[in-house]
Amino acid sequence: MEVREFQNMMRRIYFRRDSARGAAGTFNWLRDEVEELEAAIDAEDKKALEDEFADVLAWLASLANVVGIDLEGATMKKYDGKCPKCGRTPCNCTT
Amino acid sequence: MEVREFQNMMRRIYFRRDSARGAAGTFNWLRDEVEELEAAIDAEDKKALEDEFADVLAWLASLANVVGIDLEGATMKKYDGKCPKCGRTPCNCTT
Repeated sequence: MEVREFQNMMRRIYFRRDSARGAAGTFNWLRDEVEELEAAIDAEDKKALEDEFADVLAWLASLANVVGIDLEGATMKKYDGKCPKCGRTPCNCTT
Repeated sequence: MEVREFQNMMRRIYFRRDSARGAAGTFNWLRDEVEELEAAIDAEDKKALEDEFADVLAWLASLANVVGIDLEGATMKKYDGKCPKCGRTPCNCTT
């Protein structure tokens, strides 16, 4: 599934709630999901990992909807097949 | 761009470095980028927002590579066009 298509799906399902909650509240949900992802990594629990990766991407897309950012467009602008810092694939940055 | 294609691009550019750093270190980078995204939201800076959304998605994909999770597959399993809690579009959850 395309990133843009997924962001649009999140808009259809959640935008009414997301926009009412606003950017700060939606960011807090994203941060909570990132913390749950950390717990799943520590537990090495594959089912929990799948769930939490899904939730982080979902809340990232919801947040992008609230603040009016095209997640796919922004990402493709920065990451276009090579490292944006050293310009190489694989990355050859020294820091 | 498909989520899977983006995750594969991140693998080509960064997997050597990501796998050497490991899951805990890669998670710390993701958390730092989430904090930078919060700062961009507070500043209402569109260029910074685009950069930080891109970076969060990039580090999320890198982390998925390190722990062996298919980000697109995991996300589609949970979010298949309707809210996974109430089963509706738009979401009609009461909590």
